[in-house]
Amino acid sequence: MGLLIKEIRHNRLLWLLAFVPLLFVLQRLKPGSHTLLFVLSVLAIVPLAALLSHATEAVAAKTGDTVGGLLNATLGNLTELVIALTALHAGQYTLVKASVAGAIVTNTLFMLGMSFLLGGLKHRAQEFSRPAARLQTTLLFLATVALLVPSAVSVADSATASAFTHDLSVGLSVLLIAAYGLSLVFSLKTHREWFAGAAKAESGEASWPMGLALATLAGVTVVVALVSEIFVESVQHAAVTLGMTPAFVGFIVVALVGGAAEMASAFSAARKDRLDLSVGIALGSASQIALFIVPVLVLLSYVIGPSPMNLQFWPSAVIMMLLATLTACLVTAGGRSAWFVGVLILIVYLIFAMTLYLLPPRDIS
Amino acid sequence: MGLLIKEIRHNRLLWLLAFVPLLFVLQRLKPGSHTLLFVLSVLAIVPLAALLSHATEAVAAKTGDTVGGLLNATLGNLTELVIALTALHAGQYTLVKASVAGAIVTNTLFMLGMSFLLGGLKHRAQEFSRPAARLQTTLLFLATVALLVPSAVSVADSATASAFTHDLSVGLSVLLIAAYGLSLVFSLKTHREWFAGAAKAESGEASWPMGLALATLAGVTVVVALVSEIFVESVQHAAVTLGMTPAFVGFIVVALVGGAAEMASAFSAARKDRLDLSVGIALGSASQIALFIVPVLVLLSYVIGPSPMNLQFWPSAVIMMLLATLTACLVTAGGRSAWFVGVLILIVYLIFAMTLYLLPPRDIS
Amino acid sequence: MGLLIKEIRHNRLLWLLAFVPLLFVLQRLKPGSHTLLFVLSVLAIVPLAALLSHATEAVAAKTGDTVGGLLNATLGNLTELVIALTALHAGQYTLVKASVAGAIVTNTLFMLGMSFLLGGLKHRAQEFSRPAARLQTTLLFLATVALLVPSAVSVADSATASAFTHDLSVGLSVLLIAAYGLSLVFSLKTHREWFAGAAKAESGEASWPMGLALATLAGVTVVVALVSEIFVESVQHAAVTLGMTPAFVGFIVVALVGGAAEMASAFSAARKDRLDLSVGIALGSASQIALFIVPVLVLLSYVIGPSPMNLQFWPSAVIMMLLATLTACLVTAGGRSAWFVGVLILIVYLIFAMTLYLLPPRDIS
Repeated sequence: MGLLIKEIRHNRLLWLLAFVPLLFVLQRLKPGSHTLLFVLSVLAIVPLAALLSHATEAVAAKTGDTVGGLLNATLGNLTELVIALTALHAGQYTLVKASVAGAIVTNTLFMLGMSFLLGGLKHRAQEFSRPAARLQTTLLFLATVALLVPSAVSVADSATASAFTHDLSVGLSVLLIAAYGLSLVFSLKTHREWFAGAAKAESGEASWPMGLALATLAGVTVVVALVSEIFVESVQHAAVTLGMTPAFVGFIVVALVGGAAEMASAFSAARKDRLDLSVGIALGSASQIALFIVPVLVLLSYVIGPSPMNLQFWPSAVIMMLLATLTACLVTAGGRSAWFVGVLILIVYLIFAMTLYLLPPRDIS
Repeated sequence: MGLLIKEIRHNRLLWLLAFVPLLFVLQRLKPGSHTLLFVLSVLAIVPLAALLSHATEAVAAKTGDTVGGLLNATLGNLTELVIALTALHAGQYTLVKASVAGAIVTNTLFMLGMSFLLGGLKHRAQEFSRPAARLQTTLLFLATVALLVPSAVSVADSATASAFTHDLSVGLSVLLIAAYGLSLVFSLKTHREWFAGAAKAESGEASWPMGLALATLAGVTVVVALVSEIFVESVQHAAVTLGMTPAFVGFIVVALVGGAAEMASAFSAARKDRLDLSVGIALGSASQIALFIVPVLVLLSYVIGPSPMNLQFWPSAVIMMLLATLTACLVTAGGRSAWFVGVLILIVYLIFAMTLYLLPPRDIS
Repeated sequence: MGLLIKEIRHNRLLWLLAFVPLLFVLQRLKPGSHTLLFVLSVLAIVPLAALLSHATEAVAAKTGDTVGGLLNATLGNLTELVIALTALHAGQYTLVKASVAGAIVTNTLFMLGMSFLLGGLKHRAQEFSRPAARLQTTLLFLATVALLVPSAVSVADSATASAFTHDLSVGLSVLLIAAYGLSLVFSLKTHREWFAGAAKAESGEASWPMGLALATLAGVTVVVALVSEIFVESVQHAAVTLGMTPAFVGFIVVALVGGAAEMASAFSAARKDRLDLSVGIALGSASQIALFIVPVLVLLSYVIGPSPMNLQFWPSAVIMMLLATLTACLVTAGGRSAWFVGVLILIVYLIFAMTLYLLPPRDIS
């Protein structure tokens, strides 16, 4: 417990934890003040995500390379998963889809671009492993193809269309999870040395005892779930009040909030000239969401959702995912980076963010 | 003749030739049993395609590098051409288009992916020539652009649209054949050494005398044409009976059957760690179909078809061809392969196959 | 003045200047002969563009590397800018959009492809800097994304759609100009050595005194503006008479005419085996139009146009820009070229040109 408090003192981001009790109190007293609840829940999720990420790393560090890598890979996007599950349970499928599509695009463009920019402002030119980046972008491309197909294949008759889309979504989800599992076998077992740089770097920082780490993991997950519930309830009302479209909130705000902890790690690695680690976190996180979180949500929607969720994304979201993947392919092909490469990636992100911000609310479904 | 029989004894695939007479007998006796005729014709085409491919190589080996290369390049997809011509003659343009689009996608994804997987299961990491692969993927990309444009440019008025699409299809066909011809000049004459690995490997195996080779080539082509006729007649009925969509049959089944012989060569080369040869066969075959077979079919449709055929593919087929080409570009950019790269490519193929399998039959035209 | 006349004597392209007075005389005497005026204005623009380009280089050579680079970058496409501004002022937004989209596609495909082909016919294999080409193609890709988004995001309700598209166009224009400015900071200041080859090569040729260069720059710009006015007035009528669609004229003819001077430089550099320079001119010019000329036109349309112009391009134009960018990415990824690579790029250009030539006139807007 002392270690946990020391960690909180040391890491200023964790001071935001003060917003967690504040949020619960406010929800009791003023359940109708949606905008304030929304802002507080955003502020509360950031430090919780950071804690979750620390706890995951601590557990991973104690369990050996393979199991640890598996844990990191599976729980690395736990915050995004819990938020999406809460929205799924509430039947808010548009929000679920916007948040996962947004997380993929945000990790691919914002996290990668900002890493290149921050690294490039400190270092004149930075190198990173091309083969590792190529594998990550190829995985991401594969996932984008899977998410693109149900929207690209149009079926005229609406009754058969719905059945077709649902069957296809389940089939694709199984394929994606299989691809994800095999990618773990490849990167953690058979060809571990191809990813050496990224894997080694993450351990070493965390030194919590196992018990504390596991307890934190469990406890914080519950708190994140409770905060997510308030967040999901308030987000629609708040978006209207703040003049933001739900698409913008789901795609941009939720994604930035949910990924805050990983971004902190990626940016700090970039400034330390360990760009391999930054690229690994950004692209690895994006492909993990696409290959693991998304299909898990589709399959779980049959169990916990009010109705099954399919993989049919809003067309612009598909285009944005595809363009984000192509951008990542292009900029990582050279294995060399400078500040302007980061700027280029960030501008692609800004183009998407601006489009979503200006879009009339009704045109997303 | 002794050589031919020896070949048949040696190569177990050729034992399937027994299905050829069986098929002709059955067609006489029970012309209405479409499903059985379909299955038998599929089984009969596989060994015939292997024989055709052997005979072509034998003729090519005797005629010197340039003429031999030309022969190999032109007759390498003779099976696909004969099947497509039969369907063209029968006016089954949907089947023709599905089979050529499917052959492009199957060669690019299935043949390449399975080569990487089979090679990777035996060898930890495999290298191949990046420049040769890059040229093949660029050729394929060019062909995809040509096949994409008539579907991408929409014309509102249906009367002018039809005239426009036909004029454009003829023009594009001429351009594609010109590109194909120049690619042969480039790879067989002016810059032969850039393709050295792939070219040298194919010769040497076949040692038939010229007369036997030519006779086999002519005779087997006729038999393939007869079998194709039964195949094309029965495929629609059989698809219904087997619960498969015509799109799935044309795109996947016909493509796998027609390419069986080349696949055998590509897979065997990959296991012998001659990945350059595998990549050359897979991508070369795909671009040959796109740049040569497809435009020849369009131009021949004016002569032997009931009405002119255009280059307007079903939109999902265009998307699949484009995504297959991009996948090939991505995975061959590094010049290095391992088993998981093969898995990735195969999963993209499975995504397409699953989509086509589930698609309601009416939604392809 | 003597220098200017010497230049004109020396450079045969400049003999076409004789068409300038001829054009003005004809316009007085026969203002209705649109086709002749169109042909003469095309012939007159070519040498004027060459003069403009010489004068820009001369001014740039006198002003030091950074300011000179800036001038070259800003005034390098002055001819295209003046033509587009004249069309903008006349409210011919379809022509404006076709001409800028066409300039991007023509520079990316025709100028690059012809450079590769002409260079490759003289030299067996040519090398160029991959990192510089990669940065240029990434910049171009970014611009294509920005031009793609307003057309890709469809809004159902037409009233809000129009407001949305205009707001988005202004926002994107500001982003593009910012990206362009930062790219200049990057290539002219912070990382100048990454572009060393291309930058050094251009200076040295021109040796005009500053006064002559500035006077030529100003004088010729005025003449270009006057010629452009006749061109823009006559182009629609002439297109009908010559049996060409306005899309073809705007996309292909205007782009070839406006870029004639740069093409002459790029082709001559390619034949001298200085392919880095050719690639720099072709891709640099394309991205300059996309990142600077296009947003400037959108913003200026609020001042000098009859109504605001948006960034919504005709869908086929967007597809062509995207495919041209992908082609450039693919063919420059290797850093090596031969004649056939040029042929491949030119065939993609021919595919587009043929499509536009055959397209029924009404289907562009």
